[in-house]
Amino acid sequence: MKNIIIASTSTIHGSGYLDYILDNLSTFFKGIEEILFIPYARPSGISHDDYTRTVRVAFYKINKNVTGIHTYKNPVEAVKKAKAIFIGGGNTFVLTNQLYKNDLIVPLQSAIKKGTPYLGTSAGSNICGLTIKTTNDMPIVYPPSFKALGFVPFNINPHYLDPDKNSKHMGETRETRIKEFHNFNTQPVIGLREGSWLEVNNNSIILKGALTARVFEYNKLPYEVDSGTDLSHLK
Amino acid sequence: MKNIIIASTSTIHGSGYLDYILDNLSTFFKGIEEILFIPYARPSGISHDDYTRTVRVAFYKINKNVTGIHTYKNPVEAVKKAKAIFIGGGNTFVLTNQLYKNDLIVPLQSAIKKGTPYLGTSAGSNICGLTIKTTNDMPIVYPPSFKALGFVPFNINPHYLDPDKNSKHMGETRETRIKEFHNFNTQPVIGLREGSWLEVNNNSIILKGALTARVFEYNKLPYEVDSGTDLSHLK
Repeated sequence: MKNIIIASTSTIHGSGYLDYILDNLSTFFKGIEEILFIPYARPSGISHDDYTRTVRVAFYKINKNVTGIHTYKNPVEAVKKAKAIFIGGGNTFVLTNQLYKNDLIVPLQSAIKKGTPYLGTSAGSNICGLTIKTTNDMPIVYPPSFKALGFVPFNINPHYLDPDKNSKHMGETRETRIKEFHNFNTQPVIGLREGSWLEVNNNSIILKGALTARVFEYNKLPYEVDSGTDLSHLK
Repeated sequence: MKNIIIASTSTIHGSGYLDYILDNLSTFFKGIEEILFIPYARPSGISHDDYTRTVRVAFYKINKNVTGIHTYKNPVEAVKKAKAIFIGGGNTFVLTNQLYKNDLIVPLQSAIKKGTPYLGTSAGSNICGLTIKTTNDMPIVYPPSFKALGFVPFNINPHYLDPDKNSKHMGETRETRIKEFHNFNTQPVIGLREGSWLEVNNNSIILKGALTARVFEYNKLPYEVDSGTDLSHLK
Protein backbone atom coordinates (compact mmCIF):
# COMPACT_ATOMS: atom_id res chain seq x y z
CA MET A 1 0.00 0.00 0.00
CA LYS A 2 2.51 2.59 -1.21
CA ASN A 3 1.69 6.06 -2.39
CA ILE A 4 4.80 7.88 -3.58
CA ILE A 5 5.97 10.54 -6.03
CA ILE A 6 9.69 10.45 -6.88
CA ALA A 7 10.50 13.62 -8.84
CA SER A 8 13.76 14.41 -10.62
CA THR A 9 13.69 18.04 -9.52
CA SER A 10 11.65 20.53 -7.49
CA THR A 11 12.02 23.26 -10.06
CA ILE A 12 12.06 23.49 -13.84
CA HIS A 13 14.08 26.20 -15.57
CA GLY A 14 12.06 29.41 -15.83
CA SER A 15 9.29 28.51 -13.35
CA GLY A 16 8.81 28.70 -9.58
CA TYR A 17 9.40 26.12 -6.88
CA LEU A 18 7.25 22.99 -7.55
CA ASP A 19 5.14 24.94 -10.09
CA TYR A 20 5.40 22.34 -12.87
CA ILE A 21 3.97 19.57 -10.70
CA LEU A 22 1.58 21.48 -8.43
CA ASP A 23 -1.61 20.34 -10.20
CA ASN A 24 -0.56 16.73 -9.78
CA LEU A 25 0.34 17.31 -6.15
CA SER A 26 -3.09 18.77 -5.55
CA THR A 27 -4.58 15.42 -6.64
CA PHE A 28 -1.87 13.36 -4.94
CA PHE A 29 -2.41 15.06 -1.57
CA LYS A 30 -6.22 15.24 -1.94
CA GLY A 31 -7.99 15.35 1.43
CA ILE A 32 -4.77 16.06 3.30
CA GLU A 33 -4.46 19.37 5.13
CA GLU A 34 -0.95 19.23 6.52
CA ILE A 35 2.35 17.97 5.09
CA LEU A 36 5.39 17.17 7.22
CA PHE A 37 8.44 18.64 5.49
CA ILE A 38 11.95 17.28 6.09
CA PRO A 39 14.43 20.05 5.22
CA TYR A 40 17.60 18.11 6.11
CA ALA A 41 19.20 18.27 2.63
CA ARG A 42 19.77 22.04 3.05
CA PRO A 43 20.31 23.21 -0.58
CA SER A 44 23.13 25.79 -0.62
CA GLY A 45 23.32 25.29 3.13
CA ILE A 46 20.14 27.27 3.91
CA SER A 47 18.58 26.95 7.35
CA HIS A 48 15.74 24.53 8.08
CA ASP A 49 13.46 27.52 8.75
CA ASP A 50 14.25 29.24 5.46
CA TYR A 51 13.84 26.05 3.48
CA THR A 52 10.52 25.25 5.14
CA ARG A 53 9.29 28.77 4.36
CA THR A 54 9.94 28.26 0.62
CA VAL A 55 8.04 24.98 0.68
CA ARG A 56 5.19 26.49 2.70
CA VAL A 57 4.73 29.29 0.14
CA ALA A 58 4.52 26.76 -2.70
CA PHE A 59 1.99 24.48 -0.98
CA TYR A 60 -0.11 27.44 0.10
CA LYS A 61 -1.14 27.70 -3.58
CA ILE A 62 -2.93 24.35 -3.30
CA ASN A 63 -4.21 25.01 0.24
CA LYS A 64 -1.87 22.75 2.18
CA ASN A 65 -0.16 23.59 5.45
CA VAL A 66 3.50 22.68 5.85
CA THR A 67 5.39 22.07 9.10
CA GLY A 68 9.12 21.46 9.34
CA ILE A 69 10.21 18.31 11.16
CA HIS A 70 12.88 20.38 12.98
CA THR A 71 10.11 22.16 14.93
CA TYR A 72 9.11 18.88 16.63
CA LYS A 73 10.83 17.69 19.78
CA ASN A 74 10.58 14.09 18.64
CA PRO A 75 11.14 13.65 14.88
CA VAL A 76 10.34 9.92 15.02
CA GLU A 77 6.90 10.69 16.49
CA ALA A 78 6.41 13.43 13.90
CA VAL A 79 6.94 10.90 11.09
CA LYS A 80 4.65 8.35 12.75
CA LYS A 81 1.85 10.87 13.06
CA ALA A 82 2.32 12.62 9.71
CA LYS A 83 -0.60 12.63 7.25
CA ALA A 84 1.86 13.17 4.38
CA ILE A 85 5.63 13.61 4.05
CA PHE A 86 7.81 15.65 1.69
CA ILE A 87 11.60 15.45 1.57
CA GLY A 88 13.12 18.17 -0.62
CA GLY A 89 16.39 18.41 -2.51
CA GLY A 90 19.83 19.68 -1.57
CA ASN A 91 22.79 17.50 -0.70
CA THR A 92 22.06 13.76 -0.59
CA PHE A 93 24.95 13.02 1.80
CA VAL A 94 23.82 15.69 4.26
CA LEU A 95 20.25 14.42 4.03
CA THR A 96 21.20 10.75 4.49
CA ASN A 97 23.50 11.56 7.38
CA GLN A 98 20.76 13.49 9.16
CA LEU A 99 18.15 10.75 8.59
CA TYR A 100 20.50 8.23 10.22
CA LYS A 101 21.41 10.61 13.06
CA ASN A 102 17.74 11.10 13.89
CA ASP A 103 16.93 7.37 13.58
CA LEU A 104 14.39 8.08 10.87
CA ILE A 105 15.17 5.33 8.35
CA VAL A 106 12.90 2.63 9.83
CA PRO A 107 10.07 5.03 10.84
CA LEU A 108 9.99 6.43 7.29
CA GLN A 109 9.92 2.93 5.82
CA SER A 110 7.07 1.93 8.14
CA ALA A 111 5.05 5.09 7.44
CA ILE A 112 5.38 4.71 3.67
CA LYS A 113 4.57 0.98 3.87
CA LYS A 114 1.31 1.72 5.62
CA GLY A 115 0.38 4.23 2.92
CA THR A 116 1.41 7.69 4.14
CA PRO A 117 1.79 9.70 0.91
CA TYR A 118 5.41 10.62 0.24
CA LEU A 119 6.83 13.20 -2.12
CA GLY A 120 10.55 13.35 -2.88
CA THR A 121 12.42 15.74 -5.15
CA SER A 122 16.08 15.45 -6.16
CA ALA A 123 17.98 14.33 -3.00
CA GLY A 124 14.59 13.40 -1.52
CA SER A 125 14.15 11.11 -4.55
CA ASN A 126 17.65 9.67 -4.45
CA ILE A 127 16.95 8.23 -1.01
CA CYS A 128 13.86 6.40 -2.36
CA GLY A 129 16.20 4.00 -4.16
CA LEU A 130 18.16 1.10 -2.69
CA THR A 131 21.30 3.18 -2.10
CA ILE A 132 22.53 6.73 -2.62
CA LYS A 133 25.37 5.42 -4.80
CA THR A 134 23.96 7.10 -7.92
CA THR A 135 23.64 10.61 -6.51
CA ASN A 136 25.27 13.47 -8.41
CA ASP A 137 26.08 15.32 -5.20
CA MET A 138 29.40 16.15 -3.63
CA PRO A 139 30.21 13.94 -0.60
CA ILE A 140 30.59 16.88 1.78
CA VAL A 141 29.80 14.80 4.88
CA TYR A 142 30.45 11.10 5.61
CA PRO A 143 27.17 9.31 6.39
CA PRO A 144 27.15 6.06 8.42
CA SER A 145 25.93 4.16 5.35
CA PHE A 146 25.04 4.65 1.67
CA LYS A 147 21.93 2.45 2.15
CA ALA A 148 18.76 4.37 1.43
CA LEU A 149 15.04 3.91 2.08
CA GLY A 150 14.45 1.33 -0.67
CA PHE A 151 10.90 2.39 -1.55
CA VAL A 152 11.61 1.10 -5.08
CA PRO A 153 13.76 -1.93 -5.98
CA PHE A 154 16.32 0.04 -7.99
CA ASN A 155 18.41 3.22 -7.80
CA ILE A 156 17.44 6.73 -8.90
CA ASN A 157 19.63 9.18 -10.77
CA PRO A 158 17.77 12.51 -10.59
CA HIS A 159 18.59 15.51 -12.80
CA TYR A 160 19.63 12.99 -15.46
CA LEU A 161 21.69 14.75 -18.10
CA ASP A 162 22.47 13.57 -21.64
CA PRO A 163 26.10 13.81 -22.78
CA ASP A 164 26.99 17.17 -24.36
CA LYS A 165 28.54 16.14 -27.67
CA ASN A 166 30.19 19.53 -28.12
CA SER A 167 31.91 19.54 -24.73
CA LYS A 168 35.69 19.50 -24.56
CA HIS A 169 35.58 18.71 -20.85
CA MET A 170 37.21 15.38 -20.00
CA GLY A 171 35.24 14.69 -16.79
CA GLU A 172 32.97 11.64 -17.01
CA THR A 173 29.49 11.90 -18.55
CA ARG A 174 26.54 10.79 -16.45
CA GLU A 175 26.20 7.65 -18.56
CA THR A 176 29.87 6.75 -17.97
CA ARG A 177 29.41 7.23 -14.24
CA ILE A 178 26.40 4.93 -14.13
CA LYS A 179 28.30 2.39 -16.22
CA GLU A 180 31.07 2.52 -13.59
CA PHE A 181 28.39 2.00 -10.89
CA HIS A 182 27.47 -1.26 -12.63
CA ASN A 183 31.02 -2.54 -12.29
CA PHE A 184 30.38 -2.76 -8.55
CA ASN A 185 26.57 -2.98 -8.23
CA THR A 186 23.86 -4.91 -10.06
CA GLN A 187 20.56 -3.08 -9.42
CA PRO A 188 18.95 -1.06 -12.24
CA VAL A 189 19.26 2.74 -12.29
CA ILE A 190 16.54 5.06 -13.59
CA GLY A 191 17.90 8.29 -15.06
CA LEU A 192 15.06 10.78 -14.45
CA ARG A 193 15.30 13.96 -16.50
CA GLU A 194 14.15 17.25 -15.01
CA GLY A 195 10.35 17.39 -15.41
CA SER A 196 9.92 13.61 -15.02
CA TRP A 197 8.71 11.73 -11.98
CA LEU A 198 7.75 8.22 -10.91
CA GLU A 199 4.35 7.60 -9.39
CA VAL A 200 4.34 4.57 -7.12
CA ASN A 201 0.90 3.18 -6.30
CA ASN A 202 0.84 -0.13 -4.50
CA ASN A 203 2.84 -2.30 -6.87
CA SER A 204 2.87 -0.11 -9.97
CA ILE A 205 5.68 2.35 -10.72
CA ILE A 206 4.65 4.61 -13.60
CA LEU A 207 6.89 7.17 -15.37
CA LYS A 208 5.12 10.54 -15.56
CA GLY A 209 5.83 13.90 -17.20
CA ALA A 210 6.44 14.75 -20.84
CA LEU A 211 9.91 13.20 -21.24
CA THR A 212 11.34 9.72 -21.67
CA ALA A 213 13.58 8.29 -18.95
CA ARG A 214 16.83 6.37 -19.42
CA VAL A 215 17.05 2.91 -17.88
CA PHE A 216 20.39 1.33 -17.03
CA GLU A 217 20.29 -2.38 -16.31
CA TYR A 218 23.30 -4.48 -15.34
CA ASN A 219 24.98 -6.03 -18.38
CA LYS A 220 22.54 -4.42 -20.84
CA LEU A 221 22.76 -1.42 -23.14
CA PRO A 222 20.91 1.57 -21.64
CA TYR A 223 17.51 2.31 -23.21
CA GLU A 224 14.73 4.90 -23.16
CA VAL A 225 11.23 4.35 -21.79
CA ASP A 226 8.22 6.51 -22.61
CA SER A 227 6.08 8.40 -20.16
CA GLY A 228 3.33 6.07 -18.94
CA THR A 229 5.61 3.01 -18.79
CA ASP A 230 5.27 0.76 -15.74
CA LEU A 231 8.76 0.08 -14.35
CA SER A 232 7.71 -2.24 -11.52
CA HIS A 233 9.22 -5.30 -13.24
CA LEU A 234 12.73 -3.87 -12.82
CA LYS A 235 14.82 -5.25 -10.00
CA MET B 1 61.10 16.90 1.45
CA LYS B 2 58.07 16.50 -0.80
CA ASN B 3 58.17 16.13 -4.55
CA ILE B 4 54.65 15.97 -5.98
CA ILE B 5 52.66 16.82 -9.09
CA ILE B 6 48.90 17.12 -8.57
CA ALA B 7 47.27 17.35 -12.01
CA SER B 8 43.63 18.13 -12.76
CA THR B 9 43.44 15.56 -15.56
CA SER B 10 45.53 12.93 -17.35
CA THR B 11 44.26 13.95 -20.76
CA ILE B 12 43.40 17.18 -22.50
CA HIS B 13 40.71 17.25 -25.19
CA GLY B 14 42.19 16.32 -28.57
CA SER B 15 45.51 14.91 -27.34
CA GLY B 16 46.76 11.56 -26.06
CA TYR B 17 47.11 10.22 -22.53
CA LEU B 18 49.44 12.48 -20.49
CA ASP B 19 50.69 14.15 -23.71
CA TYR B 20 50.18 17.72 -22.49
CA ILE B 21 52.39 17.23 -19.45
CA LEU B 22 54.93 14.68 -20.71
CA ASP B 23 57.80 17.19 -21.11
CA ASN B 24 57.36 18.27 -17.51
CA LEU B 25 57.18 14.66 -16.34
CA SER B 26 60.45 13.95 -18.11
CA THR B 27 62.09 16.60 -15.91
CA PHE B 28 60.11 15.65 -12.81
CA PHE B 29 61.11 11.98 -13.03
CA LYS B 30 64.70 12.72 -14.14
CA GLY B 31 67.10 9.92 -13.24
CA ILE B 32 64.29 7.53 -12.42
CA GLU B 33 63.94 4.41 -14.54
CA GLU B 34 60.86 2.78 -13.12
CA ILE B 35 57.54 4.14 -11.88
CA LEU B 36 55.14 2.20 -9.67
CA PHE B 37 51.63 2.68 -11.03
CA ILE B 38 48.55 2.29 -8.83
CA PRO B 39 45.58 1.50 -11.14
CA TYR B 40 42.96 1.14 -8.37
CA ALA B 41 40.65 3.94 -9.60
CA ARG B 42 39.68 1.83 -12.66
CA PRO B 43 38.25 4.46 -15.06
CA SER B 44 35.15 3.00 -16.77
CA GLY B 45 35.82 -0.15 -14.76
CA ILE B 46 38.82 -1.30 -16.85
CA SER B 47 41.11 -3.99 -15.49
CA HIS B 48 44.33 -3.19 -13.65
CA ASP B 49 46.29 -4.81 -16.50
CA ASP B 50 44.58 -2.75 -19.22
CA TYR B 51 44.99 0.47 -17.28
CA THR B 52 48.67 -0.23 -16.60
CA ARG B 53 49.22 -0.90 -20.30
CA THR B 54 47.87 2.55 -21.24
CA VAL B 55 50.16 4.18 -18.71
CA ARG B 56 53.14 2.12 -19.83
CA VAL B 57 52.67 3.21 -23.45
CA ALA B 58 52.61 6.87 -22.42
CA PHE B 59 55.72 6.70 -20.23
CA TYR B 60 57.59 4.71 -22.84
CA LYS B 61 57.78 7.99 -24.81
CA ILE B 62 60.02 9.45 -22.10
CA ASN B 63 61.92 6.21 -21.52
CA LYS B 64 60.36 5.18 -18.22
CA ASN B 65 59.29 1.68 -17.27
CA VAL B 66 55.95 1.25 -15.50
CA THR B 67 54.89 -1.63 -13.23
CA GLY B 68 51.40 -2.06 -11.80
CA ILE B 69 51.14 -2.44 -8.02
CA HIS B 70 48.67 -5.32 -8.57
CA THR B 71 51.53 -7.45 -9.91
CA TYR B 72 53.30 -7.39 -6.52
CA LYS B 73 52.48 -9.90 -3.81
CA ASN B 74 52.94 -7.24 -1.15
CA PRO B 75 51.66 -3.79 -2.17
CA VAL B 76 52.97 -2.16 1.03
CA GLU B 77 56.50 -3.35 0.24
CA ALA B 78 56.06 -2.21 -3.37
CA VAL B 79 55.28 1.34 -2.18
CA LYS B 80 58.19 1.31 0.28
CA LYS B 81 60.66 0.27 -2.42
CA ALA B 82 59.25 2.43 -5.23
CA LYS B 83 61.53 4.97 -6.88
CA ALA B 84 58.49 6.96 -8.01
CA ILE B 85 54.72 6.56 -7.74
CA PHE B 86 51.85 7.46 -10.07
CA ILE B 87 48.16 7.16 -9.14
CA GLY B 88 45.87 7.70 -12.13
CA GLY B 89 42.26 8.83 -12.42
CA GLY B 90 38.98 6.97 -12.42
CA ASN B 91 36.57 6.77 -9.52
CA THR B 92 37.81 8.42 -6.31
CA PHE B 93 35.60 6.24 -4.06
CA VAL B 94 36.85 3.03 -5.66
CA LEU B 95 40.43 4.26 -5.38
CA THR B 96 40.11 5.36 -1.74
CA ASN B 97 38.39 2.12 -0.78
CA GLN B 98 41.16 0.07 -2.35
CA LEU B 99 43.92 2.12 -0.70
CA TYR B 100 42.33 1.48 2.71
CA LYS B 101 41.72 -2.21 1.96
CA ASN B 102 45.40 -2.67 1.07
CA ASP B 103 46.60 -0.63 4.08
CA LEU B 104 48.41 1.78 1.81
CA ILE B 105 47.48 5.13 3.39
CA VAL B 106 50.34 5.32 5.89
CA PRO B 107 52.97 3.73 3.58
CA LEU B 108 52.12 6.28 0.87
CA GLN B 109 52.34 9.14 3.36
CA SER B 110 55.73 7.90 4.60
CA ALA B 111 57.11 7.40 1.08
CA ILE B 112 56.05 10.86 -0.07
CA LYS B 113 57.37 12.44 3.15
CA LYS B 114 60.82 11.00 2.54
CA GLY B 115 60.81 12.40 -1.01
CA THR B 116 59.60 9.64 -3.35
CA PRO B 117 58.29 11.58 -6.38
CA TYR B 118 54.51 11.28 -6.70
CA LEU B 119 52.30 12.06 -9.67
CA GLY B 120 48.53 12.17 -9.32
CA THR B 121 45.92 12.87 -11.98
CA SER B 122 42.20 13.40 -11.37
CA ALA B 123 41.17 10.84 -8.68
CA GLY B 124 44.89 10.40 -7.94
CA SER B 125 44.97 14.16 -7.25
CA ASN B 126 41.78 14.24 -5.21
CA ILE B 127 43.39 11.93 -2.67
CA CYS B 128 46.35 14.33 -2.24
CA GLY B 129 44.02 16.68 -0.36
CA LEU B 130 42.81 16.40 3.23
CA THR B 131 39.63 14.54 2.29
CA ILE B 132 37.85 13.27 -0.82
CA LYS B 133 34.82 15.40 0.06
CA THR B 134 35.30 17.61 -3.00
CA THR B 135 35.45 14.86 -5.61
CA ASN B 136 33.08 15.06 -8.59
CA ASP B 137 32.72 11.29 -8.75
CA MET B 138 29.73 9.08 -8.12
CA PRO B 139 29.88 7.28 -4.74
CA ILE B 140 29.62 3.81 -6.30
CA VAL B 141 31.32 2.08 -3.36
CA TYR B 142 31.35 2.98 0.37
CA PRO B 143 34.92 3.53 1.57
CA PRO B 144 35.80 3.16 5.28
CA SER B 145 36.58 6.89 5.45
CA PHE B 146 36.60 10.05 3.34
CA LYS B 147 40.00 11.02 4.82
CA ALA B 148 42.67 11.23 2.15
CA LEU B 149 46.48 11.35 2.04
CA GLY B 150 46.82 14.99 3.09
CA PHE B 151 49.92 15.79 1.02
CA VAL B 152 48.65 19.39 0.87
CA PRO B 153 46.78 21.26 3.64
CA PHE B 154 43.62 21.82 1.60
CA ASN B 155 41.21 19.97 -0.70
CA ILE B 156 41.45 19.52 -4.47
CA ASN B 157 38.61 19.80 -6.95
CA PRO B 158 40.01 18.41 -10.22
CA HIS B 159 38.35 18.95 -13.63
CA TYR B 160 37.11 22.27 -12.25
CA LEU B 161 34.32 23.58 -14.47
CA ASP B 162 32.99 27.12 -14.69
CA PRO B 163 29.21 27.56 -14.62
CA ASP B 164 27.57 27.37 -18.06
CA LYS B 165 25.50 30.54 -18.18
CA ASN B 166 23.35 29.22 -21.03
CA SER B 167 22.41 26.00 -19.27
CA LYS B 168 18.78 25.34 -18.36
CA HIS B 169 19.78 22.41 -16.17
CA MET B 170 18.84 22.90 -12.51
CA GLY B 171 21.51 20.62 -11.00
CA GLU B 172 24.05 22.48 -8.86
CA THR B 173 27.06 24.19 -10.46
CA ARG B 174 30.50 23.21 -9.24
CA GLU B 175 30.81 26.51 -7.39
CA THR B 176 27.50 25.89 -5.58
CA ARG B 177 28.66 22.43 -4.57
CA ILE B 178 31.92 23.75 -3.11
CA LYS B 179 29.96 26.47 -1.33
CA GLU B 180 27.83 23.72 0.23
CA PHE B 181 31.05 21.91 1.23
CA HIS B 182 32.00 25.01 3.21
CA ASN B 183 28.83 24.81 5.24
CA PHE B 184 30.26 21.68 6.83
CA ASN B 185 34.05 22.00 6.36
CA THR B 186 36.55 24.83 6.74
CA GLN B 187 39.63 23.89 4.67
CA PRO B 188 40.32 25.73 1.40
CA VAL B 189 39.50 24.05 -1.93
CA ILE B 190 41.55 24.55 -5.10
CA GLY B 191 39.50 24.24 -8.28
CA LEU B 192 42.05 22.97 -10.84
CA ARG B 193 40.96 23.35 -14.45
CA GLU B 194 41.97 20.71 -17.00
CA GLY B 195 45.53 21.53 -18.09
CA SER B 196 46.53 22.91 -14.67
CA TRP B 197 48.59 21.21 -12.00
CA LEU B 198 50.21 21.93 -8.66
CA GLU B 199 53.91 21.32 -8.19
CA VAL B 200 54.81 20.63 -4.59
CA ASN B 201 58.48 20.99 -3.75
CA ASN B 202 59.35 20.86 -0.08
CA ASN B 203 57.21 23.66 1.28
CA SER B 204 56.25 25.43 -1.93
CA ILE B 205 53.03 24.63 -3.82
CA ILE B 206 53.11 26.31 -7.23
CA LEU B 207 50.24 26.47 -9.73
CA LYS B 208 51.45 25.38 -13.19
CA GLY B 209 49.99 25.26 -16.70
CA ALA B 210 48.49 28.02 -18.81
CA LEU B 211 45.27 28.61 -16.86
CA THR B 212 44.27 30.32 -13.65
CA ALA B 213 42.87 28.25 -10.78
CA ARG B 214 39.87 29.09 -8.59
CA VAL B 215 40.44 29.23 -4.83
CA PHE B 216 37.59 28.72 -2.38
CA GLU B 217 38.32 29.75 1.17
CA TYR B 218 35.91 29.42 4.07
CA ASN B 219 33.83 32.56 4.55
CA LYS B 220 35.47 34.35 1.59
CA LEU B 221 34.37 35.06 -1.95
CA PRO B 222 36.08 32.65 -4.38
CA TYR B 223 38.94 34.15 -6.39
CA GLU B 224 41.30 33.35 -9.26
CA VAL B 225 45.06 32.85 -8.94
CA ASP B 226 47.52 33.01 -11.83
CA SER B 227 49.84 30.28 -12.97
CA GLY B 228 53.09 30.60 -10.98
CA THR B 229 51.32 31.52 -7.73
CA ASP B 230 52.58 29.85 -4.57
CA LEU B 231 49.60 28.46 -2.64
CA SER B 232 51.52 27.11 0.34
CA HIS B 233 50.09 29.78 2.67
CA LEU B 234 46.59 28.31 2.33
CA LYS B 235 45.36 26.12 5.16
